[in-house]
Amino acid sequence: MRSHYCGDLRASHDGETVELCGWVHRRRDHGGVIFLDVRDRTGLVQVVFDPDTVDAFALADKVRGEYVLKITGRVRLRDEAVRNPRMATGDIEVLGKALTILNEAQTPPFELDEYSAAGEEVRLKYRYLDLRRPEALQRFQFRSRLTHAVRAFLEKEGFMDVETPVLTRATPEGARDYLVPSRTHAGSFFALPQSPQLFKQLLMVAGFDRYYQIAKCFRDEDLRADRQPEFTQIDLEASFVEEEDIMGVAERMARTLFRELLDVELPEFPRMTFAEAMSRYGSDKPDLRVPMELVDIADLMDGVEFKVFAGPAKDPKGRVVALKVPGGADLSRKEIDEYTKFVGIYGAKGLAYVKVNDLAAGAEGLQSPILKFLTEDAIKGILERTGAATGDLIFFGADKAKVVNEAMGALRVKVGHERGLAEGDWKPLWVVDFPMFEEEDGRYYALHHPFTMPKCDPGELKSNPEGALSRAYDMVLNGTELGGGSIRIHRPDMQQTVFEALGIDEQEAREKFGFLLDALKYGAPPHGGLAFGLDRMVMLMTGSDSIREVIAFPKTQTAACLMTNAPSPVDNQQLREVGISVRKADS
Amino acid sequence: MRSHYCGDLRASHDGETVELCGWVHRRRDHGGVIFLDVRDRTGLVQVVFDPDTVDAFALADKVRGEYVLKITGRVRLRDEAVRNPRMATGDIEVLGKALTILNEAQTPPFELDEYSAAGEEVRLKYRYLDLRRPEALQRFQFRSRLTHAVRAFLEKEGFMDVETPVLTRATPEGARDYLVPSRTHAGSFFALPQSPQLFKQLLMVAGFDRYYQIAKCFRDEDLRADRQPEFTQIDLEASFVEEEDIMGVAERMARTLFRELLDVELPEFPRMTFAEAMSRYGSDKPDLRVPMELVDIADLMDGVEFKVFAGPAKDPKGRVVALKVPGGADLSRKEIDEYTKFVGIYGAKGLAYVKVNDLAAGAEGLQSPILKFLTEDAIKGILERTGAATGDLIFFGADKAKVVNEAMGALRVKVGHERGLAEGDWKPLWVVDFPMFEEEDGRYYALHHPFTMPKCDPGELKSNPEGALSRAYDMVLNGTELGGGSIRIHRPDMQQTVFEALGIDEQEAREKFGFLLDALKYGAPPHGGLAFGLDRMVMLMTGSDSIREVIAFPKTQTAACLMTNAPSPVDNQQLREVGISVRKADS
Repeated sequence: MRSHYCGDLRASHDGETVELCGWVHRRRDHGGVIFLDVRDRTGLVQVVFDPDTVDAFALADKVRGEYVLKITGRVRLRDEAVRNPRMATGDIEVLGKALTILNEAQTPPFELDEYSAAGEEVRLKYRYLDLRRPEALQRFQFRSRLTHAVRAFLEKEGFMDVETPVLTRATPEGARDYLVPSRTHAGSFFALPQSPQLFKQLLMVAGFDRYYQIAKCFRDEDLRADRQPEFTQIDLEASFVEEEDIMGVAERMARTLFRELLDVELPEFPRMTFAEAMSRYGSDKPDLRVPMELVDIADLMDGVEFKVFAGPAKDPKGRVVALKVPGGADLSRKEIDEYTKFVGIYGAKGLAYVKVNDLAAGAEGLQSPILKFLTEDAIKGILERTGAATGDLIFFGADKAKVVNEAMGALRVKVGHERGLAEGDWKPLWVVDFPMFEEEDGRYYALHHPFTMPKCDPGELKSNPEGALSRAYDMVLNGTELGGGSIRIHRPDMQQTVFEALGIDEQEAREKFGFLLDALKYGAPPHGGLAFGLDRMVMLMTGSDSIREVIAFPKTQTAACLMTNAPSPVDNQQLREVGISVRKADS
Repeated sequence: MRSHYCGDLRASHDGETVELCGWVHRRRDHGGVIFLDVRDRTGLVQVVFDPDTVDAFALADKVRGEYVLKITGRVRLRDEAVRNPRMATGDIEVLGKALTILNEAQTPPFELDEYSAAGEEVRLKYRYLDLRRPEALQRFQFRSRLTHAVRAFLEKEGFMDVETPVLTRATPEGARDYLVPSRTHAGSFFALPQSPQLFKQLLMVAGFDRYYQIAKCFRDEDLRADRQPEFTQIDLEASFVEEEDIMGVAERMARTLFRELLDVELPEFPRMTFAEAMSRYGSDKPDLRVPMELVDIADLMDGVEFKVFAGPAKDPKGRVVALKVPGGADLSRKEIDEYTKFVGIYGAKGLAYVKVNDLAAGAEGLQSPILKFLTEDAIKGILERTGAATGDLIFFGADKAKVVNEAMGALRVKVGHERGLAEGDWKPLWVVDFPMFEEEDGRYYALHHPFTMPKCDPGELKSNPEGALSRAYDMVLNGTELGGGSIRIHRPDMQQTVFEALGIDEQEAREKFGFLLDALKYGAPPHGGLAFGLDRMVMLMTGSDSIREVIAFPKTQTAACLMTNAPSPVDNQQLREVGISVRKADS
């Protein structure tokens, strides 16, 4: 229906007759002439209708914003004075000769140009209009190019694209499953996969050797800004490999994507142990753009009677840290109050600080509500260890280690960015040597998942589960976990031992994972893999604020689609067919 | 962990030391030496352990079938006499120097070499073993190469890969939806998409211009051999296009895939109207490899009193056809009985026939139980019209047109292939000019779906819905519908008219498709698209017997996974969380 896309027209087309299709982006009437900016997926072009072309002009006079048009016209150079260097097609315009109105349009519920003024709710309800904004389209073009580059890379590396089921059995990734009632097996349910984990391991047992899939995954969790009930993983797995093989492929892939799509050369990814990351950054996904670090000071609390510090300092599960903010002495009372509120989100009960107004002046040069509680030695030790200088501020965290890490880790990133202390655009790293288990209320939970290979043998794992490290690795970029994976367990005895440590008895293991335990008995190869969060990767690489911006039809925080009104009630007949009924309240 | 894949070793590697990983495919002991055929995803290689390598030999003596090994050895040429030209690596063998048993294996429940002897049930239960058969792996390698070629083609044509939701609202494709109860909106349900139809149309309204997706689709139907509850579509849609554009892209794609993957040059696809296909082949997906055609003979039944023929000949909804089987006069009574049973599946009440033993001998040369019921003119007409010759057989179908088309259309294909009458390997075509609606019990149903554009305007559609044709097209190959699509409705008035014709009143339309009707009001472009059935395409191109052979983890005919035992019961707490309960029998 057209000869050219709007955004492709250039001065070199001068004099050509073209056929264009697109939407009226803007309409102006000026000096008896009608100017239309016509938009298609490539961009905008200005089309002019003058009264000489009687029929076309009459039609053009009828069009309004977002009408769909087909235009025949002649490309001509604009006068020097009215060229628009900010528009790719700004050197030319199209003199309209013929016009067809392909479809009319009501006035949209919000201006496509001023989307920030429109609330997210109305934008999600009319998502098909929201997606007309050029920056939205560009994000999805980027996403499409990215997945294509991922596939090209992995195919070249010998990975084979295999689809795994969506209607499957409950997977034990820790989150809640979405259930699907079965009609043919009344009273039974499928679960939507939280990841293709077990299937990809079974493909390794089948000898597929190198698998990948860009796979939809599902978790019925309470949603946060960067979570969606359905999300997409770049999932891969390989056989006869060790950590270095998988990390090597993944790192090459990340580097290739950044080079091809953003023209960015990522540095080599440094490696950091989980223990070091927690110690220095309070996080297993540290944002290395922020150079500030947590400094342990529990040992300096000898003789300090201030309970807020002394208590956690003596508690084996406690932690006491200092966080120096270079140049932070100019923080106002109000700003410090804001930060105190912020760490409160993570359970911190307060936020002590010391301002170093004049280092040379000793205690006189310091300003702090807690100064009086600390010993001279403690103060000296803190200043030395943090390397504080005049003009700096030191924050303190003292509590259970978990609270300190979460609160001070998050504060570090927030203060670092707000104070302009972040350095560099892209700071990737690998975090390795994770513990196998987390302990909570006397029970062990798998830090990754129960199929992760420990670094020790089954006997050592049994005798010291708490100390066991896993052969897992996370790729972290700018404080976001881009991907994670591990070498998997390939022997039934080791798998059984891990299940036992997790309190899964033989019967439960048999019932839930019988097929995996069987598979491991029939010649399972050593194997491992990794999964990237595609949505997060696109969000990061396009600089989007939310994962919803890079998903075509996202759900709200209550897991609803405002456009289609999903989920929705269904009639009783349908429920009857699949053998379920809706529970009355309180039943 | 390895230096080479097993199947890649050739005479040119003679003398090299290699590290291999893989499975013991076969073990033979011969003259005090152990021969192992070691398998990985590339193929097999023979590894020899002789008693000189004491440690490795001792270990090799322990291995059994499907053990997982790492082997270090030296490649050497085999003696001329024992080279194996049927094996890619048959010119060489590897002299094993060191061996590691990476994992042991129990004896598999079935021999991987003799799979035909194992029932499908045990193969599905141990799918990870079933997939070890080299021909299974090859099918999935083919599938992976195919999807990659599809993506490469569509990206080059400017299509952009966009993911649409899996948790969505019930779609009206005519089949039963899979439901997913919502936890956050108790009593409400998501549906899994039967296709991304409405989402891709909304992407066109959004101006995405050219969309594609390799998308999982879900239909809760009673399963036949070529159906699965979840299946995969190559889905595409484009704006500002007409039939020729979409059919052109699709045909180029099919031709590209056959060229790149099978080295086959497909002919140009002929076009055939739905009416012609039904008339000549009794099917809207005719297998053109079979040259036999149905011949209408209702008009020859004047004066024939034989009710079986005369009744349908007079019934406006009836049809009477002849189907000539060249050389079919040698069909035995038993074979004809089998065919009679076969057409019975489609509702035919019998299968009349005439054997032409000697055309020149007139009625004397014919052999048939029904001869006596036919007039001389009728017999003469039938022989002339079918062009029957001595040695042929003519089958007859007479019933409601629907029954005749289904029964005789299927018989045509079955007899054609069984009698070796099929010609050529690949016979594609387009079927076009479908009716908009099918009538059943006084109601109209959409032959494709309610978003298909009619060839007429809303007024004409209202006055003659039965006669209306649609702008739909199906790609058919060898009797299988590979893909289908249409130009869609892009104006709200036309959409409303089609809903009305389908008996969907304004309130129901609003409730179910309000978002689509809204979208059409805000400037929807003319658009159309197509969807290919990927599984069927792979099945056809790999010559597989069943769609289950090209799906990694398929479901059985009762929609169950024998490997994971999905679906399965879930505990009451989980049901409570999503606000449903299992219905008791008869409730």
